[in-house]
Amino acid sequence: MGSTLADVAAHAGVSVQTVSNALNNPALLKQTTLERVLASVAALGYSPNLQAKRLRHGTVSTIGVRIEPATDNIASSLLDRFLHELTGRADARGQHVVVFTAESDDDEVRRVRSLASQRVADRFLLTSTHADDTRAPALLDAGLPFVAFGRPWGPAPAHSWVDVDGAAGTREATEALLDAGHRRVGFVGWPIGSGSGDDRRRGWASAMQERTGLGDDDLEAITVRCTDLLSDAVDATAPLIAGDVDALVCASDALAAGAIGAAMEAGRSLPVIGFDNTALALGIGFSSVDQSVGQVADAVLDALDGEPGAVTMLVTPQLVRRQHVRWGIAPNDRGPSPS
Amino acid sequence: MGSTLADVAAHAGVSVQTVSNALNNPALLKQTTLERVLASVAALGYSPNLQAKRLRHGTVSTIGVRIEPATDNIASSLLDRFLHELTGRADARGQHVVVFTAESDDDEVRRVRSLASQRVADRFLLTSTHADDTRAPALLDAGLPFVAFGRPWGPAPAHSWVDVDGAAGTREATEALLDAGHRRVGFVGWPIGSGSGDDRRRGWASAMQERTGLGDDDLEAITVRCTDLLSDAVDATAPLIAGDVDALVCASDALAAGAIGAAMEAGRSLPVIGFDNTALALGIGFSSVDQSVGQVADAVLDALDGEPGAVTMLVTPQLVRRQHVRWGIAPNDRGPSPS
Repeated sequence: MGSTLADVAAHAGVSVQTVSNALNNPALLKQTTLERVLASVAALGYSPNLQAKRLRHGTVSTIGVRIEPATDNIASSLLDRFLHELTGRADARGQHVVVFTAESDDDEVRRVRSLASQRVADRFLLTSTHADDTRAPALLDAGLPFVAFGRPWGPAPAHSWVDVDGAAGTREATEALLDAGHRRVGFVGWPIGSGSGDDRRRGWASAMQERTGLGDDDLEAITVRCTDLLSDAVDATAPLIAGDVDALVCASDALAAGAIGAAMEAGRSLPVIGFDNTALALGIGFSSVDQSVGQVADAVLDALDGEPGAVTMLVTPQLVRRQHVRWGIAPNDRGPSPS
Repeated sequence: MGSTLADVAAHAGVSVQTVSNALNNPALLKQTTLERVLASVAALGYSPNLQAKRLRHGTVSTIGVRIEPATDNIASSLLDRFLHELTGRADARGQHVVVFTAESDDDEVRRVRSLASQRVADRFLLTSTHADDTRAPALLDAGLPFVAFGRPWGPAPAHSWVDVDGAAGTREATEALLDAGHRRVGFVGWPIGSGSGDDRRRGWASAMQERTGLGDDDLEAITVRCTDLLSDAVDATAPLIAGDVDALVCASDALAAGAIGAAMEAGRSLPVIGFDNTALALGIGFSSVDQSVGQVADAVLDALDGEPGAVTMLVTPQLVRRQHVRWGIAPNDRGPSPS
């Protein structure tokens, strides 16, 4: 009754992840690989939606998602935006989303078990995955169906996950600045050790290495790291801005806004690109890498409808370019213009 | 089995709303009234929680809340913050929150009926109430229990509602600026006709009239109105900032951020107070009126547990004062200092 993602992978001689990327994120694949996978999809008549209908037996499915009990920070808006996209798309599939809070990862697992036993929710989404995450093993042990938004920062897991390719986003931002003629593009990131923060620096570093020939020490000299607070970022980026960088790529919009503030205080004007495309980027008006949360939400719902572990997918984020930067950025120095 | 809010009101010789305010928002009442109501509460042994338990018969209750299908604007973060507070508090009461999207008010009513008939949710919360709102009458007709976050901008309704006293918030902001020695405090608001926008201007206007003796025409001369976009607010406030206002109260943080941008472009520095206390106010660093969404969430959950129509309550928002304004505001001109 319909073939699976694994059938397609075996037919094409590629990994399940490659099939998933071919369907959802074709730009990641070589043209020849893409064509081979799509030929297998066609040959086997694979359909994720057909499979979804088969698995759900027409019952109402409700997805449980943990959210923070209270929030007033900038970064949380990314998961809020994701929740809106997920809910709208779940509704369109006749599925529901129930939100809940938890005090810790262990508490989250307890609440997931409770929601499942009360039949309030039958499938779950883990967000904000991190190193030494105990939630996925616990839910696998409990036999509860789930998908993670966030790659596993550890051994290869037995569950499906969808994440955003942060390195691809900072690479696009860096290349846009280099294409616009900037040479000393600095990086503002988080302290070493956060998986997604290190990933975002990696994209910037690889683009800079390829295009400018700078080595590791050179790149470290134009990197600063601080906590994800705008006010900390003003202080942390000041020395960088007093130096010879001519543009900045940042791991978040809070860091980018802080860097813009530091530039204003120093009487300088240079293009700054943020990450997450939050209301701060829209409000102040600077370019930012958008995590494509709508695409993530679609992929998560497909993964929940699919076989456990079948989907391991990186969604490519998109640089949102803003030319109209009113604060502190001179009209003739606005960074990358729309191509 | 326990007395009701109406019993307490009859005992104390006051309205049900007054009892509700005495329990949830005592600062709104005269001391003598407050003491009389609390004496009746004690005499009758009234307990909202007891009543809640009685009404819910020990079953798991799930509250349905509509959210937007997608969002990238600044104002939406207020409802997101509210959702976090509501979910955390509902969890603590052993209740659940299910979110859904709708294309229109009529579609929301259809979805509420469907969620109720599928037993996915058994109680509902209406948000963003507006003039000629057809949702409340439709849900009353359908016999579905609900509470509104937002006052009815029309005839007195038969359902419970909780709203934030916007006028009290802008009044506090205006008085803080007047106390700090400012005299020409201008107002930046939305086009006439939005209930909450007109309400917020009213609080500013009444404080200005009482304290400075300015008449309606004078106040109109230091008012500007525009859509809730930061970039529109930069343009709209420029003429005001070119004039003789020495401080501004704004109907939203987006407007406040725009006014700060306009002041920077004009090379001026003046205190600006926003509304909603969003990430923008925290990030840029300006004072803002906080809607006390945690208190609203508590009141909404009490109202859902109570008798239909028993709660009609205005929560008083709080001015969050920020001294550390880095961008464009000189250290000696930071507006109200913490009292």
